[in-house]
Amino acid sequence: MIDITTQTVQILAILISALALGVAVWLYSWVKSQPSSNARIAEIGEYIRQGANTFLGREYVVLARFTAIIAVLIVIFLPKPIWSGHGFASNIWMAVAYIFGTVLSALAGKIGIQIATIANIKAAEAAQKGVKPSFMAGFRGGAVMGMAVVGTSLLGVTLVLMVVGDASAVLGFSFGASSLALFAKAGGGIFTKTADISADLVGKVELGLEEDDPRNPAVIADNVGDNVGDVAGMGADLFDSNVASMSAALVMATALGGLQSKNVTMVFAYAAIGLLSSIIGVATARIGKDGDPGKALNSSTYVTTAIFAVLTALSTYIFGFEWRIWGATAVGLIVGTIIGITSDYFTNDAKPPVHAVAEASKSGPAFTILSGFSYGLLSTLPALIGIAVTALVSYYICAPLGDGYGMFGISMSALGMLSIVGMIISNDAYGPIVDNARGLAEMGGFGEKVIAITDELDSAGNTVKAVTKGFSISAAGLTVISLLGAFMSEVNTSAAELGLKGIENFDIMDPTVFFGLIIGVAIPAVFSAMLMLGVDKNAQRMVAEIHRQWDSIPGLKDGKENAKPDYDKCIDIATTGSLKELIPAGLVAIVSTIAVGFIGGVSAIGGFLTGNIASGLLLALLMSNAGGLWDNSKKYVEAGNCGGKGSTAHKAAVVGDTVGDPFKDTAGPSINTQITVVSLISSLLSTLFLLYSFF
Amino acid sequence: MIDITTQTVQILAILISALALGVAVWLYSWVKSQPSSNARIAEIGEYIRQGANTFLGREYVVLARFTAIIAVLIVIFLPKPIWSGHGFASNIWMAVAYIFGTVLSALAGKIGIQIATIANIKAAEAAQKGVKPSFMAGFRGGAVMGMAVVGTSLLGVTLVLMVVGDASAVLGFSFGASSLALFAKAGGGIFTKTADISADLVGKVELGLEEDDPRNPAVIADNVGDNVGDVAGMGADLFDSNVASMSAALVMATALGGLQSKNVTMVFAYAAIGLLSSIIGVATARIGKDGDPGKALNSSTYVTTAIFAVLTALSTYIFGFEWRIWGATAVGLIVGTIIGITSDYFTNDAKPPVHAVAEASKSGPAFTILSGFSYGLLSTLPALIGIAVTALVSYYICAPLGDGYGMFGISMSALGMLSIVGMIISNDAYGPIVDNARGLAEMGGFGEKVIAITDELDSAGNTVKAVTKGFSISAAGLTVISLLGAFMSEVNTSAAELGLKGIENFDIMDPTVFFGLIIGVAIPAVFSAMLMLGVDKNAQRMVAEIHRQWDSIPGLKDGKENAKPDYDKCIDIATTGSLKELIPAGLVAIVSTIAVGFIGGVSAIGGFLTGNIASGLLLALLMSNAGGLWDNSKKYVEAGNCGGKGSTAHKAAVVGDTVGDPFKDTAGPSINTQITVVSLISSLLSTLFLLYSFF
Repeated sequence: MIDITTQTVQILAILISALALGVAVWLYSWVKSQPSSNARIAEIGEYIRQGANTFLGREYVVLARFTAIIAVLIVIFLPKPIWSGHGFASNIWMAVAYIFGTVLSALAGKIGIQIATIANIKAAEAAQKGVKPSFMAGFRGGAVMGMAVVGTSLLGVTLVLMVVGDASAVLGFSFGASSLALFAKAGGGIFTKTADISADLVGKVELGLEEDDPRNPAVIADNVGDNVGDVAGMGADLFDSNVASMSAALVMATALGGLQSKNVTMVFAYAAIGLLSSIIGVATARIGKDGDPGKALNSSTYVTTAIFAVLTALSTYIFGFEWRIWGATAVGLIVGTIIGITSDYFTNDAKPPVHAVAEASKSGPAFTILSGFSYGLLSTLPALIGIAVTALVSYYICAPLGDGYGMFGISMSALGMLSIVGMIISNDAYGPIVDNARGLAEMGGFGEKVIAITDELDSAGNTVKAVTKGFSISAAGLTVISLLGAFMSEVNTSAAELGLKGIENFDIMDPTVFFGLIIGVAIPAVFSAMLMLGVDKNAQRMVAEIHRQWDSIPGLKDGKENAKPDYDKCIDIATTGSLKELIPAGLVAIVSTIAVGFIGGVSAIGGFLTGNIASGLLLALLMSNAGGLWDNSKKYVEAGNCGGKGSTAHKAAVVGDTVGDPFKDTAGPSINTQITVVSLISSLLSTLFLLYSFF
Repeated sequence: MIDITTQTVQILAILISALALGVAVWLYSWVKSQPSSNARIAEIGEYIRQGANTFLGREYVVLARFTAIIAVLIVIFLPKPIWSGHGFASNIWMAVAYIFGTVLSALAGKIGIQIATIANIKAAEAAQKGVKPSFMAGFRGGAVMGMAVVGTSLLGVTLVLMVVGDASAVLGFSFGASSLALFAKAGGGIFTKTADISADLVGKVELGLEEDDPRNPAVIADNVGDNVGDVAGMGADLFDSNVASMSAALVMATALGGLQSKNVTMVFAYAAIGLLSSIIGVATARIGKDGDPGKALNSSTYVTTAIFAVLTALSTYIFGFEWRIWGATAVGLIVGTIIGITSDYFTNDAKPPVHAVAEASKSGPAFTILSGFSYGLLSTLPALIGIAVTALVSYYICAPLGDGYGMFGISMSALGMLSIVGMIISNDAYGPIVDNARGLAEMGGFGEKVIAITDELDSAGNTVKAVTKGFSISAAGLTVISLLGAFMSEVNTSAAELGLKGIENFDIMDPTVFFGLIIGVAIPAVFSAMLMLGVDKNAQRMVAEIHRQWDSIPGLKDGKENAKPDYDKCIDIATTGSLKELIPAGLVAIVSTIAVGFIGGVSAIGGFLTGNIASGLLLALLMSNAGGLWDNSKKYVEAGNCGGKGSTAHKAAVVGDTVGDPFKDTAGPSINTQITVVSLISSLLSTLFLLYSFF
């Protein structure tokens, strides 16, 4: 056994983060060096790049204002109000950590967009040479994002803790990451689905255009949406989850034994090993000349998981960490894999649920919706059982180590589930890149054979997405459970400092807890409803604009050479609308937390967070899985089943897919972020709720 | 102040129950004495009556077997296993109470079907003379059901407590009512939607027949469905809620001060006054010659509410009950009214949400679904806030009375919300009766004008339904909260008797509680999904049958005199299918409760019930309101808005309505029953979970 200090591990974590960023740079230049020559594609690719940057620019301006306001509020109120005389310096540090969190996350998003809008072109061009080169361009493009996100998040958490020397500041950093994720994921989600739905609705259904027909004024916005929603948004979301899981673990580890304790060391060691495993997984990802891209993606995920399990076991042996905690992490890792497989069952087009929904579609869209929605509800069961069992088992594995270790065990199982997040992001970002490549191949007129290749790559992306989504929702579930633990730690730490009575439990039979719980149940529902209505409203605006252009631009209908649609106008509508529709939804979540806290105090917040977790997990799983199921049912019908393209079943399946789009890409995944934001606000405001509450 | 004994009040309760049953008999003969002469209608009415009785007969056979099995299990295990030596007699009494509960509830259902299948004919015939006589036939028909349900439920609870002298036996009675409700509501719900959807899908959409065209083989099944699902099922559901709320209040009242305490007296006094108020409300319900039926229904509801508030206040003053407890009841009553009004907002066709969904339908069915689903999610907020506030306020009003009184206050607020249940059932049963009358008027060829009158009556039924549904879901919510309290009482009573350690709280941070909670969240989702998939599967069978008849019965298509469809075959399919699809769903709920209890013990069950309440309330509110919203959006479009009948918006709105049907009439309202069943099983098995559990 070698004794290793926390500081040493922290420095190692920084080095591995740097390595990840180095790998990102290398992959970036590799992708950039791939050949591309087609002028038409370059032009369209440039449109997409500019559109994505327009959105990002506008979003970051809004975000900068928001961040400035929050930073001022932090300086005044957090972690303790300045008039309480508990140190002005810690408030400043908290604000700095908060800003740092938003900046790093924004940076990762920017890098992601940058590479995705290059890799899409390269993948499209490479598809002319076959599956393998196109896959590598797409995958390595995605991996840039993966390495950048995990590298910066680990770097950020480590630096904040080392510099500020206070776990609460890490919560501030995490809150920064979350508020960015709220904008990036929910705003990007509204953008992407506005464009996607409008482009399909007018283009495919009304005008009978093919997907990605360049005459469609919304076609560029649609491709931009893939980047801002699925690349930048998803990256910010996982940056957020990753940071939140580390923060929760660190708050509890610190409460258990201080900043230099072995538990803190272990958190950093495991997080660093997770990143290292992802680097190895990314670097070794290969595909045969005519290999199956889906298998290639999944096998790299499993390889990464295995490497993580072995390396953490080794480090536990060498550095004398607690085996029980390693056990909790391993449980998280195993259950995460199982949950991924079950959510794959409900969305894979080779499995019964997709067939059943396609079959039901023969009787019309109502049956597509009813059956898909029902399977979506059923799909929540295995995931919820998985989360419940993980929480129970990891608690009991670690509880014998002492008071508070049970909850710490849960946070480590979340860390285990998220350990391979670098790999997950790489796979996730691969999807929209090859989806874009498909669009470019279509718009560039590369012919059927090349489009077929990009289709195959795209479909692999969808399959893998189901697994990674199951992973990330479950991990987010465990993370918010551990954030509940972190909240309790924070409350008791503050209470002790202020000489107030802390809390021993959140008793469901306590009416303030119950009150908070019931209100908490409503919040994810209202939040997701507002986002979906936002998509709905925004899409109506864009549909009107597409009609306007189609009717007023001369020659556009006939596809004349010089008749170009005004792509920018559509991008502008999607951008403005998404930010406009997002803000009220975000405010509802934030204001309701503050209201419940000041009405019912910290106990009510305990219930409120629990209610959020309960309904949030249910809705997120339901929406993600039902959405994926409808998407793949449509594809299954399009592949010639149940009547094939143009049949009644196909029309019904398209309705299902359209309903599923905002379910799976806007509302569903944004719920995670909403819960994380609410949990972090609760922890940060715990002192205020302790001091001033009605009940 | 007059001192009144518990026994006196119990006897008064029995007398008032008898009065209610007397009123039911009087109303029954009044309705029966109304004129009817049309032979065609009599014939069709007879088909409907026979069909409904076929279903009921088959259902009761299955139920009798189920009841017999459960009764044997009760004798062996409940309230304590016979080998524990804690009295074989109490197990026998429990089984008797259980059987009594199923029988009384079945009887009320049978009476309801009996009168509904007479009142529909009378209302149809009376519509020839105008709104007023038709309304009275429909309303008084519904009131028979209302009086029968509340009369028998109060009678049953009072007798069981007086004879057995043990509040646990009331739980057994309540469990009997719940198991019947599970069959009646969920089974009837599958039946009615199977028939409704199939009749519409083939008849209206495919073959272009009018609603209620007698050539449609499923038309009788559709009308039978209204009776078995909406009359008998709804009656059993509210019988169940009413009994459960009294049981929970009685268990806690007994735990607070024994069987003869003032609290027990008060429970009976308030329940009896609720019934008395409903009798007065029913007896005084009137409508002007050309009055608005919707207003007439709502005003009788408000009159009943006011009478209840005044009489309970009076009784509190005279008999010296606690004013604080009266306060809790009043809070329940007020908030119930407010929740009813808010759910009316989301489903009334004069309000913005219905217009927005109709407007969205212009862009196609996907937007009908997305917007309706989103508003459904939003609609959960006011109801959940109402429930949360009621629980919090009624707890704090009563908490100063002593330990345990807070929770008792919550149970009394549920009793307050349900106090006017007699009136609610009358209004609710009115709906399907006039809906049937509309069908009969159509099938009997009464002409446009009469159909227009029945349409007006039908539409009033839908509006009122929204308010009463809001009421009953919220009341069920508070009831299950108080059943959670009752569960804790039961656990501690058993623990004391067995010399075991009881429980002081259900701490969310306790991993077994959390484990139970997360699993509990999944159960209502899975239960409702299985019911909806059941409707889906069953409807596919019936659609095939309709096609078969349409193609093979000579002359049917052309409407030849002698060409009659085989109505019975469709009824048979709906009956067999509904019972077949229901059983697995019920088993999932029951088995998961038992599994969680034996794995995690009583703490896990505390969490499990909370999880059930959280997701159950969310889903029940979402489904009921979204379903009502879609239904009324369709009607709004049919009234000539957004393009009117035959437009794109209309087609889309029909899809919404079809999705909404099983939402609002099968899955949504069955969730209440599922949660009640789970809660009661938990209470009844509490001793076993205390004795034998893994964690």
